[in-house]
Amino acid sequence: MSSKRPLGIGLVGYQFMGRAHSNAYRQANRFFDLPRQIRMKTICGRTEGPVAEAAANLGWEGYSTDWRTLLDDPEIDVIDISTPGDSHPEIAIAAAQAGKAVWCEKPIANTLGEAERMHSAVMASGAHNGVFHNYRKAPAIALAKQMITDGRLGEIHHVRCHYLQDWIVDPEFPLVWRLQKDKAGSGSLGDIGSHSIDLARHLAGEITDVMGHLHTFVTERPLLADSAAGLAAASGSAEKGPVTVDDAALIMAKFANGAIGTFEASRFCQGRKNYNRIEINGRLGSIVFNMERMNELEFYSAEDPEGLQGFRLIQATEGGHPWCSAYWPTAHIIGYEHTFVNWVVDAVRTLDAGEKMDPDFADGLMNQRVLDAVERSSIGGAWASV
Amino acid sequence: MSSKRPLGIGLVGYQFMGRAHSNAYRQANRFFDLPRQIRMKTICGRTEGPVAEAAANLGWEGYSTDWRTLLDDPEIDVIDISTPGDSHPEIAIAAAQAGKAVWCEKPIANTLGEAERMHSAVMASGAHNGVFHNYRKAPAIALAKQMITDGRLGEIHHVRCHYLQDWIVDPEFPLVWRLQKDKAGSGSLGDIGSHSIDLARHLAGEITDVMGHLHTFVTERPLLADSAAGLAAASGSAEKGPVTVDDAALIMAKFANGAIGTFEASRFCQGRKNYNRIEINGRLGSIVFNMERMNELEFYSAEDPEGLQGFRLIQATEGGHPWCSAYWPTAHIIGYEHTFVNWVVDAVRTLDAGEKMDPDFADGLMNQRVLDAVERSSIGGAWASV
Amino acid sequence: MSSKRPLGIGLVGYQFMGRAHSNAYRQANRFFDLPRQIRMKTICGRTEGPVAEAAANLGWEGYSTDWRTLLDDPEIDVIDISTPGDSHPEIAIAAAQAGKAVWCEKPIANTLGEAERMHSAVMASGAHNGVFHNYRKAPAIALAKQMITDGRLGEIHHVRCHYLQDWIVDPEFPLVWRLQKDKAGSGSLGDIGSHSIDLARHLAGEITDVMGHLHTFVTERPLLADSAAGLAAASGSAEKGPVTVDDAALIMAKFANGAIGTFEASRFCQGRKNYNRIEINGRLGSIVFNMERMNELEFYSAEDPEGLQGFRLIQATEGGHPWCSAYWPTAHIIGYEHTFVNWVVDAVRTLDAGEKMDPDFADGLMNQRVLDAVERSSIGGAWASV
Amino acid sequence: MSSKRPLGIGLVGYQFMGRAHSNAYRQANRFFDLPRQIRMKTICGRTEGPVAEAAANLGWEGYSTDWRTLLDDPEIDVIDISTPGDSHPEIAIAAAQAGKAVWCEKPIANTLGEAERMHSAVMASGAHNGVFHNYRKAPAIALAKQMITDGRLGEIHHVRCHYLQDWIVDPEFPLVWRLQKDKAGSGSLGDIGSHSIDLARHLAGEITDVMGHLHTFVTERPLLADSAAGLAAASGSAEKGPVTVDDAALIMAKFANGAIGTFEASRFCQGRKNYNRIEINGRLGSIVFNMERMNELEFYSAEDPEGLQGFRLIQATEGGHPWCSAYWPTAHIIGYEHTFVNWVVDAVRTLDAGEKMDPDFADGLMNQRVLDAVERSSIGGAWASV
Repeated sequence: MSSKRPLGIGLVGYQFMGRAHSNAYRQANRFFDLPRQIRMKTICGRTEGPVAEAAANLGWEGYSTDWRTLLDDPEIDVIDISTPGDSHPEIAIAAAQAGKAVWCEKPIANTLGEAERMHSAVMASGAHNGVFHNYRKAPAIALAKQMITDGRLGEIHHVRCHYLQDWIVDPEFPLVWRLQKDKAGSGSLGDIGSHSIDLARHLAGEITDVMGHLHTFVTERPLLADSAAGLAAASGSAEKGPVTVDDAALIMAKFANGAIGTFEASRFCQGRKNYNRIEINGRLGSIVFNMERMNELEFYSAEDPEGLQGFRLIQATEGGHPWCSAYWPTAHIIGYEHTFVNWVVDAVRTLDAGEKMDPDFADGLMNQRVLDAVERSSIGGAWASV
Repeated sequence: MSSKRPLGIGLVGYQFMGRAHSNAYRQANRFFDLPRQIRMKTICGRTEGPVAEAAANLGWEGYSTDWRTLLDDPEIDVIDISTPGDSHPEIAIAAAQAGKAVWCEKPIANTLGEAERMHSAVMASGAHNGVFHNYRKAPAIALAKQMITDGRLGEIHHVRCHYLQDWIVDPEFPLVWRLQKDKAGSGSLGDIGSHSIDLARHLAGEITDVMGHLHTFVTERPLLADSAAGLAAASGSAEKGPVTVDDAALIMAKFANGAIGTFEASRFCQGRKNYNRIEINGRLGSIVFNMERMNELEFYSAEDPEGLQGFRLIQATEGGHPWCSAYWPTAHIIGYEHTFVNWVVDAVRTLDAGEKMDPDFADGLMNQRVLDAVERSSIGGAWASV
Repeated sequence: MSSKRPLGIGLVGYQFMGRAHSNAYRQANRFFDLPRQIRMKTICGRTEGPVAEAAANLGWEGYSTDWRTLLDDPEIDVIDISTPGDSHPEIAIAAAQAGKAVWCEKPIANTLGEAERMHSAVMASGAHNGVFHNYRKAPAIALAKQMITDGRLGEIHHVRCHYLQDWIVDPEFPLVWRLQKDKAGSGSLGDIGSHSIDLARHLAGEITDVMGHLHTFVTERPLLADSAAGLAAASGSAEKGPVTVDDAALIMAKFANGAIGTFEASRFCQGRKNYNRIEINGRLGSIVFNMERMNELEFYSAEDPEGLQGFRLIQATEGGHPWCSAYWPTAHIIGYEHTFVNWVVDAVRTLDAGEKMDPDFADGLMNQRVLDAVERSSIGGAWASV
Repeated sequence: MSSKRPLGIGLVGYQFMGRAHSNAYRQANRFFDLPRQIRMKTICGRTEGPVAEAAANLGWEGYSTDWRTLLDDPEIDVIDISTPGDSHPEIAIAAAQAGKAVWCEKPIANTLGEAERMHSAVMASGAHNGVFHNYRKAPAIALAKQMITDGRLGEIHHVRCHYLQDWIVDPEFPLVWRLQKDKAGSGSLGDIGSHSIDLARHLAGEITDVMGHLHTFVTERPLLADSAAGLAAASGSAEKGPVTVDDAALIMAKFANGAIGTFEASRFCQGRKNYNRIEINGRLGSIVFNMERMNELEFYSAEDPEGLQGFRLIQATEGGHPWCSAYWPTAHIIGYEHTFVNWVVDAVRTLDAGEKMDPDFADGLMNQRVLDAVERSSIGGAWASV
């Protein structure tokens, strides 16, 4: 255990992502030998009752109803932003200006302009910064990255991404904040498509041009009694309001390295629950990953003996696989929450070492540039440069 | 067994497709009780030695080196065109004018203009006509069609097609006829993408608009010593020639019924051998089919009891499934060749009954319209109407 | 095509197996270049109407209602026995004594004594003989055999066989001949378990000791109106008769090479249709085969690079895989019936070359010895030597 | 959060199981609203340095090197026994006599006699008791249990269990404690086979008779330099010692309800890592579970519409599935460690409510009776009553 001062965290937001991040902060030192002990100093939310309860349940020392108080706390080193996208820029820029490290949920902003200002702010402050594209931290994805770096796929020809869910197929599902452009920025594109774009960039490099098509199947939905009640709200309201984001996003893409790609993000695919799938075909082999079976990586190698080639199912849970030696024996699988634990592990280590986090705000900005190009392309009905 | 005069077949072409069709003609009456006995009258090819050998091996009564002789034979009722696409129009139009039924390999033509003239010819003659989109005749696809007709998927939101192969990933693979635009019309688009388009139209209805992107990864390849030698040719020639077709085709599509679709056809996907996959997501359920496991259909029903929903793997081999009672017990699977047998069964029955074959030249023409729109769209970099 | 005299076949039996064998005889020369042309001379059954119809439908020159007439026909070289097991010994022994080659359905007999007499008869005659353990002729199994011979699995530790079906789960399913010991010899043990035993012997060598447990879940069933009507018969009879065979067979086994094995054969497994699965674990790797996906072989190699090991899915349909070059391109799959075509191909070639067929009556006899030991063991409740 | 006194835990053992249990104690209150707050009072191990470090890393208030001190601590309510099996009886009996609740790792003892004494002790004390058959607490298993209770499988015919691993295939793997009978009681039988037996009993009821076969492939192995060093030890010692437990266990079983079962436990199956699979076939349907994909349950229902039946893949991660609402959205999977969290949740709730834990020492005893019968049967080569 480290003798250094604990690393104080201030977390803004206590819903789904706040819970996932809190768990990661609680668990990281338990499984990994980190250079810094994590101190869960303060959790922040607008409403006192719930945030006080969250603080107790999730293991925080204290709570606040004003995120600005976190910036004044000298024992807080890191500001974690886990709120909806419309509040990211103000918090992130203020945190950077206060000299804090900034760790922010994805996508980092609702617009490209905001993302650029946020990126500039952390560049100016020089502080450690990271974006929670947590799926990079699935061991199977890290293994894939390493295999690609080692040349096992060769030159990449195709990138094929799907992020498919089915939670809003029902037209009576209510108008939650994720279906409102002013709060969420975009729909399936930013919420789940941005994850695919990040994985594609991570594994196959930069995207230069996109052709996008955003589509909304259900254009109005029942209003929530309390618009802040979020995903869990009951339906049944007679009054309806307009859905202002995409239900589905289709994308074609060109990569800097000559590869071509397709992306599809949708919440209208019955039976697909968290089907975040990426397939990459290279000159020498292919890989396939699906978040619903996140402990597995499929790998085809054209270098296997002739007649014995085939997609092999690697259980990416062995001691030699990234992060895995810290957990359980081979094939004693880990889950969704561990991608956040691994993210925090990498964040603490890079912060302590004065290194760049992977992914950081530059990645968040590049991701936003792709999202922006997709939206421009969809409006124009033609290819757009990133 | 029928007492009617046998149905005389004249087959033009004796390569891969000629073999598959010959097998279907040999087998159809063996497994099915058809209204007409099939008579394998004449097979036709340009070179006498090989076509004579093919006639003997494949079970034909005789052979010819001039397809026009088939049109004069009163015992030939059907002209089957299994040659490369550049010869389809002349043969098909002449056959129609000679009053023959015309059964033609897909895609029916290399250009839209040719397809229109062929369609007009069979409309004018009134003769029975069909196109060998054989994958419609996989029992699992026919089951899917019936389920959609029965409303089990509800309103369709998404169509998702991939036809992926890997046989030309190697840049040293030679310049076979399928890689030359004058002979093949197009590359992966027409060869395999057209199958996906047919399945999509068959199951989800007409496509109204497309956005296409055709890409060629390897722009020149070794010349074949004998350019007619086809797919099986050896490589190694020092001289190279230009690849004039697409290696991969990406397509976005809008359907008349409001669904949106994506298509990807490529021969550059390591590990994908005959990965002809279609997924359809509707309001009430989803289906998935992959030709590599053609005896299976995956089905998700949102109408299953809550908590017990999931994709189920139907082995589409039961007596109650289309065509299956004629073959073997449940899960004693059939293969690729049986899709042609089933096609011929349907063709003989509809011909005898004076009914329309499914799919016919109108389908072939619609397919070609989509291919044409994809090519226009790819050149223009923008959406094109079908 | 060969200039030798055609090989005349006389087939006894025209039900399920008769149909499968007839198809194989029709197709073998069409796909393979064999040293002998197959001549489908005579099919034989007890009832004239149906056998005449079968002859016409299945492609036989003539028919007979007395199998003894086949033995007198000098143009018949091979007697194929595809009747229920109780008639095998008489026909096989007479055919051997008549100097005919004898190809017999499995299991070769209903009792060990009969099998021994049949084996002696073909040994004495010196004629070519074979047993239709057709699953050996799935390309994936032949590939597995070759891999084991090449040492890719190393020393074998475990053999694990399941042959599971579900067609008699319903207690109202009638008392067909397969459920009567006097006709079928045994139940799931001989019908399907014998296939597993053959695959195990083929791939892993001889079995020396077994511990068996035979179980009957439904001890009486409705009588068939016509007891000869077979599997397709309607149920509903009020009268019931005793089931005299096993519904399920459990077996533990010891192999001569030190491996241990488990076998399970049952027709009481809902959802399992033709689930004939074998898994073999060796010092260096494992293989898995399932007849429901007979074109695939799973292979795990401990010799793959560390961290990249996993079961790989080989599509055993490539030109380099056994028999495959005669059929269709890679992953254009073949079906159940092709295992019989491949069997006939091997039988014609070995007969012509004066070689032993694999598998032959010696295999059939060894198989029967294992079945016999299982029955003895089940009665005694203790291990039995084979 | 509860106002009751926290539930004090004393944990004996800090290796693999100690880590898994500690994690469960840390996490249970974070995700679930429990009637008692868990207090991680004392962890105990024989060697001070490591146990002190474990206490700090795993989140315990204090540590001890003598488990007897835990019995004297009034703030400790529960003694958790996570040591190798040879120490279970003494600790468990003393804990029971001290009036503590006793939660014990599986199998509860190395011999039946010990298990009986342990069971008597907790019966006499009346204290809460439980056995860590954690796989019962996978949501997919709990769902299966509920489905069986609801009659969805109908009368059960077959139970089919495999627990296959591959970590000792290499003959140079050293002689760790799990390969020594005096410490481990048995080999694969007790270590992993006992899990299968528990799942089978849980889902299908009591086993009445067994036929077992225990086999050791590698009868001697290199000695560990330090015999206490456990699984992680290096190999390479020239000196060898005898393996005194089974490498593989084969079992046939009869159930009280008329079902028959097969079990196979082995650590010699290349490619199988944590392949804990159970299949149950009933009159109306079947289920399949595999711990390597523990978030999924396969279900076949013969009550589905005819022609649409097939094994469906349920992602047992929905809010309505057992324990799942406390974690993440559907298909955001959980892992191995969560089975222990769920176990602790149930244990705390039942303890607080004065109810029986499921599974408890009576289950542990029944499990041991089956293990004992298997060993007797294997020695005798004949069936044994449980």
